Amino acid sequence: MLHNSKSLTRLVGELKKLPGIGEKSATRLAFHLLRSPANIVALAESLLEVSRRVRLCSICFSITEEETCGICSGNRDDSIICVVEEPQDVLAIERSGAFRGRYHVLHGVLSPLSGVTPEDLRIPELMERLSQEGLREVVIATNFSVEGEATAIYLTGLIRSRGLRVTRLAHGIPIGSDLEYVDAATMQRAVQGRSEM
Amino acid sequence: MLHNSKSLTRLVGELKKLPGIGEKSATRLAFHLLRSPANIVALAESLLEVSRRVRLCSICFSITEEETCGICSGNRDDSIICVVEEPQDVLAIERSGAFRGRYHVLHGVLSPLSGVTPEDLRIPELMERLSQEGLREVVIATNFSVEGEATAIYLTGLIRSRGLRVTRLAHGIPIGSDLEYVDAATMQRAVQGRSEM
Repeated sequence: MLHNSKSLTRLVGELKKLPGIGEKSATRLAFHLLRSPANIVALAESLLEVSRRVRLCSICFSITEEETCGICSGNRDDSIICVVEEPQDVLAIERSGAFRGRYHVLHGVLSPLSGVTPEDLRIPELMERLSQEGLREVVIATNFSVEGEATAIYLTGLIRSRGLRVTRLAHGIPIGSDLEYVDAATMQRAVQGRSEM
Repeated sequence: MLHNSKSLTRLVGELKKLPGIGEKSATRLAFHLLRSPANIVALAESLLEVSRRVRLCSICFSITEEETCGICSGNRDDSIICVVEEPQDVLAIERSGAFRGRYHVLHGVLSPLSGVTPEDLRIPELMERLSQEGLREVVIATNFSVEGEATAIYLTGLIRSRGLRVTRLAHGIPIGSDLEYVDAATMQRAVQGRSEM
């Protein structure tokens, strides 16, 4: 940096830690913020408020400002738990409006190469929840990545041994897709999973 | 937002005010920050530090943490002032190492349609600096946009009337360019401005 403001250099350094933001974007953001002092303070206060208030739900480990999240403390179907990787996956599924059960957030996926074992995730806590009264099904909604699939297979073994039904989100052709551009693997799953009209 | 954290919703709102960051990116950034509480606090503190420390140089209106910036208080060529739109343009020119004079930051360009007049920019302050001893030349380095060019023309009239030389950054073919892909307007300027080998 050629300007002689240490605090600006430090801000650029902090902004660079954000995903998808490099040196150039960070500098652009920093200079943009400098032009609106009110926004700088509002953003800073908002960050501090989040770090003070937001915590993990003690039941499902999703994000909340209370002891338990709105879904865990709300009136939902207790017979089904949906297991996801991250809190934002809960939002994605809630937006669909198709799921009325409870959630469980793992906070990651198994990754032996990166040293992520079941104990590093919220898997022990999930196992405890499996004995809850009335539970019949666990939907595994980890991502369809290599680690996500491996985690799904690992969990399936553990959950089935408790006599519960284990399901996985359906693969298939996204709504509004042009068949011409659907990749072969997705098309294969769509054909295998075809349903009656 | 379907999660029930007001502070998180507020943070996403603040992040969305940044240039090039929409609802999705803001949400992604917010969740990323949530995963590293130390980074949230570091970013917040860094923002507050910038808002407390950074101010405009009283001479050139570039960014500094002192009364005057390093360039204004440093040993530079007093015979030439380079006029730029924004503080980050000073950095861009300094990086080239080709300019050893002083700077003057306008903080914008003239834009009658948006109601930006000379009094909204640091033009009166520039006029005052024109009478400084030893000054011979003003390089106008506003952007080559419609407003930047109009501002350059406006300033040229004012500065020439003081008997000073007015110059503009050269147009031409960027270093490393393939001639095949150079646009016609740039090529025209490159031919007009050709120099002896």
